[in-house]
Amino acid sequence: MGPEFHFQVVKACPTTKARAGLLSTPRGVVPTPAFLPVGSQGAIKTLTPDEIKDTGAKMILSNTYHLSLRPGVETVARLGGLHHFMGWYGPILTDSGGFQVFSLGRLCQVKEEGVLFRSHLDGRPLFLGPEEAVALQEALDGDLAMVLDQCPAWDEDRETVRQATERTHRWAIRCLESHRSPHQALLGIVQGGVFPDLRRESARFIASLPFFGYALGGLSLGEPKEVTYAVAEETAAHLPWERPRYLMGVGSPEDLVEGVAWGIDLFDSALPTRVARNGSLFTRQGRINVDNAPFKEQDKPIEENCDCYTCRRFSAAYLHHLFRSQELLAYRLATIHNLRFVIRLMEEMRASIMEGTFPTFRRDFLAVYRLTREETRQEQKAKWLENRRSREIRF
Amino acid sequence: MGPEFHFQVVKACPTTKARAGLLSTPRGVVPTPAFLPVGSQGAIKTLTPDEIKDTGAKMILSNTYHLSLRPGVETVARLGGLHHFMGWYGPILTDSGGFQVFSLGRLCQVKEEGVLFRSHLDGRPLFLGPEEAVALQEALDGDLAMVLDQCPAWDEDRETVRQATERTHRWAIRCLESHRSPHQALLGIVQGGVFPDLRRESARFIASLPFFGYALGGLSLGEPKEVTYAVAEETAAHLPWERPRYLMGVGSPEDLVEGVAWGIDLFDSALPTRVARNGSLFTRQGRINVDNAPFKEQDKPIEENCDCYTCRRFSAAYLHHLFRSQELLAYRLATIHNLRFVIRLMEEMRASIMEGTFPTFRRDFLAVYRLTREETRQEQKAKWLENRRSREIRF
Repeated sequence: MGPEFHFQVVKACPTTKARAGLLSTPRGVVPTPAFLPVGSQGAIKTLTPDEIKDTGAKMILSNTYHLSLRPGVETVARLGGLHHFMGWYGPILTDSGGFQVFSLGRLCQVKEEGVLFRSHLDGRPLFLGPEEAVALQEALDGDLAMVLDQCPAWDEDRETVRQATERTHRWAIRCLESHRSPHQALLGIVQGGVFPDLRRESARFIASLPFFGYALGGLSLGEPKEVTYAVAEETAAHLPWERPRYLMGVGSPEDLVEGVAWGIDLFDSALPTRVARNGSLFTRQGRINVDNAPFKEQDKPIEENCDCYTCRRFSAAYLHHLFRSQELLAYRLATIHNLRFVIRLMEEMRASIMEGTFPTFRRDFLAVYRLTREETRQEQKAKWLENRRSREIRF
Repeated sequence: MGPEFHFQVVKACPTTKARAGLLSTPRGVVPTPAFLPVGSQGAIKTLTPDEIKDTGAKMILSNTYHLSLRPGVETVARLGGLHHFMGWYGPILTDSGGFQVFSLGRLCQVKEEGVLFRSHLDGRPLFLGPEEAVALQEALDGDLAMVLDQCPAWDEDRETVRQATERTHRWAIRCLESHRSPHQALLGIVQGGVFPDLRRESARFIASLPFFGYALGGLSLGEPKEVTYAVAEETAAHLPWERPRYLMGVGSPEDLVEGVAWGIDLFDSALPTRVARNGSLFTRQGRINVDNAPFKEQDKPIEENCDCYTCRRFSAAYLHHLFRSQELLAYRLATIHNLRFVIRLMEEMRASIMEGTFPTFRRDFLAVYRLTREETRQEQKAKWLENRRSREIRF
């Protein structure tokens, strides 16, 4: 990590733990709190880099697992690295690939050296250890990189979680030792499941290592929302104030607002883009499904005061028609709206922190938005059931 | 049709029958020869109106059949007409809906009054006569509208084609008589199958009616390319010089170049966009399939001197990756390239007509492009077989 990487808290909320910061990388400065759109396969689904920029996103996330299977990190490296390959020249955060590998369930086997798994594309056996995760990310040439961690299911027993957390700690050291690139900053990951003492211990241990920033892993995996909230808030409080904090895999509007209140600086999630492709669109009143009959002849945009390209150019009726007709344009326009919604939300939260009005903003937002909590809960349950199923069959 | 509609031949090629013109409508002027991208369901598949404009397209085609089934022309009319509905404010040509109805095969029955058919969406029985076709198009509020014609399969016997052609003539008169909108210009359609005398007769009859322009229907339906060429060239020669001529459903690069040489001014086809979504991309050397292995690490664009957004921003390797990964962005970027390719081809042909060098342009283009003729032939055959199949089962 070179000297171009730094992080600065520029303003803190006097009431909550929220803070506004500036995260600098050689490829650009990211005002925080920030939301990172997810580009699993070298593209934010349906969008061009120019459109991503238009949503206000300053940094994106790319999945090392997907890219290492296809087209392969060697190919990306030969083509000049990830930025040139996908045409996004702002900062990129790469994950370690571990989360996707653990999601394979029966197709993966964890050992001290690393994880043995099979490609979901062609079944060939592969190996990912801490050193490999670092090397893959160095080859992709992203700006922020993540350590390899072992992420247990949220409802795993305490002993299993303890072992996974301790292995995560040993792997964190190995990642730090093998990381060489001066053009990339490495972030550590706190595990510990839903057990407060394991989380505290993990936060203390990971924070003692010289990472550029610290992430909260293993959350929002299907556990009840109250548990996510309690664990994330408690863990964030144990991370060093002067370093960026990253809550992985969180991206529903209500969770973003809560996360900022606990002092989180970075978030990523495929949720806004994934639900968009199902016609589920964010508004300040909660989610709406544009596929539904009431929108058939609504000549107004999805949200009247939204400044996204979709709302500036098209009626809800047109989106409704495109979804009903299964036109690919539907998925694009919906994706643009949801991304702009969450990124504008981050911008407004940052502005309110700067102005000292974040607690009011938070209260007002949640008072109106809370309506759709139930919907979110159902999706969490579906995710939880899916995670359980995949764990039942082993390698 | 109001006085804002006019057409002017501004320059003619002294050797071939090619001509450069200006087609004026209340919503804009279209330099001809011109290619119209096809938006079946109120959208050029995958693209926004802004992107269509960026390809250089000045006029687009919309399908009355699709829009009348979904969302329904009443809905489009209540939402302010097709332009406002889809956000495209340039000229729009609507077809009559007849071609799609006849393509339904067993689901349609032709009578003198019109065509009885069933919706391909829900099977409900519907009726389309000349007056209905005109009324639907008036409600959609496109700028150019087409008469309802009866389009027989290309290999139908002479007597069937003769009857269809005569019915087309009677329907043309009924369309003219029922057309009222001063904001819309109506075009007649010549039929006559592959029979030169029937074509001549039809051209003479249709040209005797006071249409704004004249179209060649019933071609490029799977007949051998030599037949399409001979019939289209012969028929075009019988149409009035001072009126726009439109060759319906033609859009492969080599056919566009030939069509211009016969004096055609307007073309439309879903071919450039449809093959794009299969990864088949136009280059001056012929079509390439970007999905193929040679493109995996090609860090250059699809075509080096192409000025389309895709070629300016992305490598062939990235497109290859997106197609292999089935990312929706692949279909967009390929569509943009192929549309820009055919529209730039039209622009270059027009420039060469203005400069008096069209015969050289045509010769040079076809000398290099002809390589892929075989590929096109296979697609024609597939189309022809499909047409046959659908005709075998009747209402």
